[in-house]
Amino acid sequence: MADAEGGRAEPEAPGGPAVGLYEAIHRRRDVRAQFTGAPIPTEKLDRMLSAAHAAPSVGLSQPWDFVLVSDPVIRRAFYDHVQHERRAFASSLEGAEAERFAGIKIDGVLEATLSLIVTYDPARGAPNVLGRHAIADAGLYSTCLAIENLWLATTAEGMGMGWVSFYRERFVRELLAIPDTVRPVAWLCIGPVSHLEETPDLERHGWRQRLALDDVLHYDHWDTTTPGQA
Amino acid sequence: MADAEGGRAEPEAPGGPAVGLYEAIHRRRDVRAQFTGAPIPTEKLDRMLSAAHAAPSVGLSQPWDFVLVSDPVIRRAFYDHVQHERRAFASSLEGAEAERFAGIKIDGVLEATLSLIVTYDPARGAPNVLGRHAIADAGLYSTCLAIENLWLATTAEGMGMGWVSFYRERFVRELLAIPDTVRPVAWLCIGPVSHLEETPDLERHGWRQRLALDDVLHYDHWDTTTPGQA
Repeated sequence: MADAEGGRAEPEAPGGPAVGLYEAIHRRRDVRAQFTGAPIPTEKLDRMLSAAHAAPSVGLSQPWDFVLVSDPVIRRAFYDHVQHERRAFASSLEGAEAERFAGIKIDGVLEATLSLIVTYDPARGAPNVLGRHAIADAGLYSTCLAIENLWLATTAEGMGMGWVSFYRERFVRELLAIPDTVRPVAWLCIGPVSHLEETPDLERHGWRQRLALDDVLHYDHWDTTTPGQA
Repeated sequence: MADAEGGRAEPEAPGGPAVGLYEAIHRRRDVRAQFTGAPIPTEKLDRMLSAAHAAPSVGLSQPWDFVLVSDPVIRRAFYDHVQHERRAFASSLEGAEAERFAGIKIDGVLEATLSLIVTYDPARGAPNVLGRHAIADAGLYSTCLAIENLWLATTAEGMGMGWVSFYRERFVRELLAIPDTVRPVAWLCIGPVSHLEETPDLERHGWRQRLALDDVLHYDHWDTTTPGQA
């Protein structure tokens, strides 16, 4: 910790794999079809959850909770709801777009070993959350930072994760008995995978292409001539 | 990429430091006081931005933009605004809390080498963003995932980053000529640092303590007996 200048591959968490940060970032995929359903070793799950919990948070509020769902009945109920929302989205599409979407798998809820729901509790550390008085969503942002840590850790542990967002928050809240004051932010599917694809699913299916980095860079002020701003 | 089972410390980005993921996650701090103002080598900044841009996004929308601000006039204007918002928050505090806050530095805008503003553009990939029809904020969440990648990459490069949230979005939008349809999500200070603290600033100042991991874990459904749910 005394040496801020990096260079060594030395994991903080005892026994954790020494996977490089950049390797985890670029290897990470949003997984749907590759889950094997094999068990998740406890020590891996512990490291992954500790990584999520080590995320930065506004005013050190740590406003996240993690609900680990292995109950197949609950997962089946969520899966059915996701299929309903899939049909709702599909009905908004036409022509080639509708056809492309028909071939895209949007969740691995039944196949993944574990469902992990991340929530945001605005009451944690309230009323005077340092850094949130001017931006109410800052706590929601913190919760997302924890999710990315979890995603990268899952990747570093040689497993896969997929974020399912075809659901209504109200449904998830009722399904898991989450209080009205707490907001479900993500339903994540996690577990061992056969492999991680080299190219994101949506790119492989021709849904969208990745942008070049230059398309999203501006200098000193917003530049409308930046290529992504068509 | 073919081998999803991790174990090697092999950075994907050519020339990037082989810092372990867990090391970056646990060493990362929200920096205010330790910026030196030294230059950021171009190849480091390129790897950091590429890491941010490799984040997952709903429907592969990649709804983020990065505005790199080095202009001292713009940074001074933002700094003055932050001090104004600091006073606004301070006026809501009383007694010991007010005293503790008085000793806490909340930004490194003038000292850090670079200010980097991350924005969210809901129009990117619209109208049919796959995975956003039921959760309007999903694109905002994606933007935050990019911010965490950037934060970890900055740490792996031996530098520091601080997220300043004492500002009004309207002010930043006007200052940087950001269109009304695009939302500023974060003002980040980035650059070389003298060191990274072992303990988060707010914990060192007695503002808040970190929670135990068990305080935020639930199994199969929300458990009101979880210690953090007081």
